Amino acid sequence: MPVKLNSPEAASLLPVKGVQLGFAEAHVRKPNRKDVLVMTLVEGSKVAGVFTLNQFCAAPVILCKDFLAQKSGIRALLVNTGNANAGTGEEGLNRAKQTCVALAGLLNLQANQILPFSTGVILEPLPVDKVIAGLPAAIANLKEDNWLNAAEAIMTTDIVAKGTSRQIQLGGKTVTITGISKGSGMIHPNMATMLGYIATDAAVSQSALESIIQYAVNKSFNCITVDGDTSTNDSLILMATNLAGNTEINEDDVKSASADFIALRDAMTDVAIELAQAIVRDGEGATKFMTVKIEGGRDEAECRKVAYAIAHSPLIKTAFFASDPNLGRILAAIGYAGVDKLDVNALKLYLGDVLVAENGGRAAAYLEEQGSAVMKEPEILVRVDLARGDASCTVWTCDFSYDYVKINADYRS
Amino acid sequence: MPVKLNSPEAASLLPVKGVQLGFAEAHVRKPNRKDVLVMTLVEGSKVAGVFTLNQFCAAPVILCKDFLAQKSGIRALLVNTGNANAGTGEEGLNRAKQTCVALAGLLNLQANQILPFSTGVILEPLPVDKVIAGLPAAIANLKEDNWLNAAEAIMTTDIVAKGTSRQIQLGGKTVTITGISKGSGMIHPNMATMLGYIATDAAVSQSALESIIQYAVNKSFNCITVDGDTSTNDSLILMATNLAGNTEINEDDVKSASADFIALRDAMTDVAIELAQAIVRDGEGATKFMTVKIEGGRDEAECRKVAYAIAHSPLIKTAFFASDPNLGRILAAIGYAGVDKLDVNALKLYLGDVLVAENGGRAAAYLEEQGSAVMKEPEILVRVDLARGDASCTVWTCDFSYDYVKINADYRS
Repeated sequence: MPVKLNSPEAASLLPVKGVQLGFAEAHVRKPNRKDVLVMTLVEGSKVAGVFTLNQFCAAPVILCKDFLAQKSGIRALLVNTGNANAGTGEEGLNRAKQTCVALAGLLNLQANQILPFSTGVILEPLPVDKVIAGLPAAIANLKEDNWLNAAEAIMTTDIVAKGTSRQIQLGGKTVTITGISKGSGMIHPNMATMLGYIATDAAVSQSALESIIQYAVNKSFNCITVDGDTSTNDSLILMATNLAGNTEINEDDVKSASADFIALRDAMTDVAIELAQAIVRDGEGATKFMTVKIEGGRDEAECRKVAYAIAHSPLIKTAFFASDPNLGRILAAIGYAGVDKLDVNALKLYLGDVLVAENGGRAAAYLEEQGSAVMKEPEILVRVDLARGDASCTVWTCDFSYDYVKINADYRS
Repeated sequence: MPVKLNSPEAASLLPVKGVQLGFAEAHVRKPNRKDVLVMTLVEGSKVAGVFTLNQFCAAPVILCKDFLAQKSGIRALLVNTGNANAGTGEEGLNRAKQTCVALAGLLNLQANQILPFSTGVILEPLPVDKVIAGLPAAIANLKEDNWLNAAEAIMTTDIVAKGTSRQIQLGGKTVTITGISKGSGMIHPNMATMLGYIATDAAVSQSALESIIQYAVNKSFNCITVDGDTSTNDSLILMATNLAGNTEINEDDVKSASADFIALRDAMTDVAIELAQAIVRDGEGATKFMTVKIEGGRDEAECRKVAYAIAHSPLIKTAFFASDPNLGRILAAIGYAGVDKLDVNALKLYLGDVLVAENGGRAAAYLEEQGSAVMKEPEILVRVDLARGDASCTVWTCDFSYDYVKINADYRS
């Protein structure tokens, strides 16, 4: 079960002026599931995206990058679950385009004004007819007050829907930000991770929005891992509809780090962090939510090496599942993380607030009961002070349980 | 259960002239287990070792490196299971030294003529009194015809003992090679992996033996992974007792690649490969043995990146456990392995002899039944042709099962 995570209340996901959402049950892979989502954006909206670095990136990812580069004025997003349209070659691209053409026809747009997204099984042909057959129902369902249905429509092995909202004031105007995400396996940051959609009605220029997305993704989706596998389909999209009435936030605001820019950037980043953490809390088979914080590094890169060595270790993740303070496994991971000339006698390891290891071994005052008490919590902080600099980083992950194996051994059946 | 691996017959492990082995049940961690092993070497034996690159390397690893560097004439090896003496700081070093001093006293040697090894739980103090109390029984048990007991005495979570022998002719003299190994979790190559001991009675110089160990480890223990965790204690030791009567193989043989050198090197490498593969076959919870062969790379380094991306992916390893030909997960791993400018349309993916993917997607002639048939086998070949060069590499790994989680969640209890 997800770790301290429930589906949001429908009313808690605030409408964003200029964004409408509609779903369909199109039977892409399984019947009686919301599996097609259409999002429309009012004319003049700005859209920015970051995508997987996987070189086997999916056909829709290739199209998204192409259409965004064309600056064609994105007006709609189309998401299907049940099939990733990845590892599908030239024919996969054709099928993704067909869905864009079909939706463009129904919405009176050009095909390159539609961003397509797919998630699900890799290496199988997209059942394009089913997706297209579902579009009229999704369009009939379009409304602003529909974010929870949208969050449900993009779920695959997710147990709960993921979404959150914020409101801030910019120059006396109320600005709303609402985001949804999906994902619980094949999760390792290498750019944006999984599907995430965050919309705001703020007025913000394209370049400012792109500045915000880079900042937000590095603080959120690029700091999570479930299993170290980088998906073929990861995409994060930021959308701004320009309807809140605030003075447009532009490149000058970015350069001067104006109060409005910082406020919007931080609120959108906050949404991104909550959505990213929700993916980990709903990680496949997760029973524990772990925050791995590395401090005292020479640079952020070496902190990330240590954080991911810990966050990826199956030995550590199974020990956390067992609530076993088998902390030697954490020392071993620090030792093989690849930090140049690490002084193992200088570093300190903490579990929650408990000092566990120093001087190259177990801390003199450490008692196993202290470690056990921390390990029983559903949320656990692992903190390492490398004691060689001022850099730090934080990564979130979950434990590794029987259910992880079960879910992934059964996923296609 | 181990994949196509049984404990060797006692008689199949051939004595090596000049090597005696004796065990004790010293109750280091648990009662009624062979947990202390003493190996003695005849005077004049040559010894070479390679050790973990983990910076949190264990106290005995530090001592081994030190004593080998002193060229003190190694005459005995001392191994305990149940405790790794890693993450134990200065006191760990003291305790490891105490065991060497004690054994040296009993054997009338100097402490720096003893190589110590420990394997088991990290971060707990070595119960040095128990190890030392076990030494007289181990010494009383010393004999040449004792390799199976020795293989059993170094097991931890191993299900079966691991050992093998070869005999070759060098200049009309019969040369024997016998090796044993242990390990089934925290296994990822970054130098020698796990504990491995390979002895021969061949006459071979120190420099030639060191040349052989580097060659052998790169073809064997550095090509396996179970869980991607590099242990704190990994050690591989080659020993040569000089009693076979062959003309000594020396540095000139290495330089000229003489027939005798190649014969001995390849036979010892063959033993190392069998011992390394045995560790994977007995990988924690393993039900499948996977050979991952990458061909057509620009260099070996990029082939290894791809091989390990596949061999480490929990998504792929759980799919193999389920005998599910979910091959898209393999394409995804190839895509995120970090190969520069990979042409995903040029590469080919094979499962056994079956061409699964080409032109960026599923091969036209591929049928799911073909993949399913291969996946049901206990030994599976995954082959990728990167189609951009002549380099290749092979890595061995196992699948990821419920039992992996169970073993590692329970290991300390």
